[in-house]
Amino acid sequence: MKIIYLLLIIGFSSQLISQSCQNMEGAWTNELGSALVIDLIQEDGTLIGHYASSTGVDGKIFPLHGWINKNADNPNEVNIAFSVRWKGYGSITSWTGYCLVQEGKPQIKTIWNLVRSGKEFDWERIITNSSTFKASDQK
Amino acid sequence: MKIIYLLLIIGFSSQLISQSCQNMEGAWTNELGSALVIDLIQEDGTLIGHYASSTGVDGKIFPLHGWINKNADNPNEVNIAFSVRWKGYGSITSWTGYCLVQEGKPQIKTIWNLVRSGKEFDWERIITNSSTFKASDQK
Amino acid sequence: MKIIYLLLIIGFSSQLISQSCQNMEGAWTNELGSALVIDLIQEDGTLIGHYASSTGVDGKIFPLHGWINKNADNPNEVNIAFSVRWKGYGSITSWTGYCLVQEGKPQIKTIWNLVRSGKEFDWERIITNSSTFKASDQK
Amino acid sequence: MKIIYLLLIIGFSSQLISQSCQNMEGAWTNELGSALVIDLIQEDGTLIGHYASSTGVDGKIFPLHGWINKNADNPNEVNIAFSVRWKGYGSITSWTGYCLVQEGKPQIKTIWNLVRSGKEFDWERIITNSSTFKASDQK
Repeated sequence: MKIIYLLLIIGFSSQLISQSCQNMEGAWTNELGSALVIDLIQEDGTLIGHYASSTGVDGKIFPLHGWINKNADNPNEVNIAFSVRWKGYGSITSWTGYCLVQEGKPQIKTIWNLVRSGKEFDWERIITNSSTFKASDQK
Repeated sequence: MKIIYLLLIIGFSSQLISQSCQNMEGAWTNELGSALVIDLIQEDGTLIGHYASSTGVDGKIFPLHGWINKNADNPNEVNIAFSVRWKGYGSITSWTGYCLVQEGKPQIKTIWNLVRSGKEFDWERIITNSSTFKASDQK
Repeated sequence: MKIIYLLLIIGFSSQLISQSCQNMEGAWTNELGSALVIDLIQEDGTLIGHYASSTGVDGKIFPLHGWINKNADNPNEVNIAFSVRWKGYGSITSWTGYCLVQEGKPQIKTIWNLVRSGKEFDWERIITNSSTFKASDQK
Repeated sequence: MKIIYLLLIIGFSSQLISQSCQNMEGAWTNELGSALVIDLIQEDGTLIGHYASSTGVDGKIFPLHGWINKNADNPNEVNIAFSVRWKGYGSITSWTGYCLVQEGKPQIKTIWNLVRSGKEFDWERIITNSSTFKASDQK
């Protein structure tokens, strides 16, 4: 009987656990409704996941990889970078940023660069902007 | 005897073959003397390699991963992104750009973002600049 | 008597008028609490104002200048750029972006670059990030 | 007679004097052949000039304004920012960077952002890249 209670508690707790800056695995959503899912962060800092953009790519899902890093002097300042190859579109986006706690909740603040083909001039192939991702269950 | 000549020619030629925008595997050097080595580009566009920065990281070599992409309409416009986790420093750099042929030789032109820790303000954690990589045997 | 009413109405109305994407003169505040005041936009698109950063410059106010632009085909898409010389600090920030209406209220979304001196390497002199400014009376 | 020689020497010398990082007034050319002309740098750091892009704007010349800055601790590290309103095109470019001496000659290294209208998505309105300007008589 005690074991059942224990299992129930563990099960219930695990549903409440959401991602944090120290454990970023999980689903995140940006201000445009695009979804970043971090499936796995390995011990060497490798990040694996997938991305569903809300605009411009017909609702497809794309694999992503990247890195997590922090140093010993600033263990609470977690840096992140990841990139998506837009298969079939010829373009690639790289996001670079850091995790912040705002009002008790984690945010991934990023600056991104997107490089693409088919423009009149090569100098207009890279676009830039920012995205902030919040844990998806915060919405 | 002819066969030996032929083998000599093939051997000599293969030493002259360097990377191109269509086959970017090989060693590249930027304007500051940092070395980008692309070890492998896989069929799914994944890029694997390593990076030796000329400044700031004590001559260490770091693994990198990234993507290559192009689309069917612009097969000569090859886009690239890759990133390095500066293990022990807490920072990550993401390069985003494209390969160009200038005066008959390939160049990888990139804009990069570097995110780091330990700054007074979070808003000063991301730095940006540009790097152009040339095939290392062009120097 | 009617004239007095009319003057009262005009006076009251003018207090309600706040800036819009078509008339950006006025005070704006970003997510860090810094204040952008656009004092004047001239017919040639020149913008004059001042800036009070919430961090890093001891509460001082700095003059700024910049540009507004839009084209005939997209009159509702107003672009903006402005820059501040941080007198005494040696640095300069350039903001580049556009005005958007979100939930009925104008926002100036920008990407900025800040260049500074006194770093170990020249390649780390430019930092980048984003700022969104909302009309100050919206807060 | 000696005075005439002296005047001739002075006159000849002054024609050889070109801009430096400490006196950036003059004509500069970037890698694409665009011309940056800095007409005047005022005591308050204001910069006034004009710009002739080699691509995309039909050879027209546009006014520009910006800033120069340096601090007392690093007087040889001169920072610069300037921006151009592309009248009739709806767009604006902001350049941000610094002056460097390379092989005895001054260079202005910049990162730029260009914001424009008429794109499918607002998030693709800002493009970025780099430009390095060399004193025009160096070419």
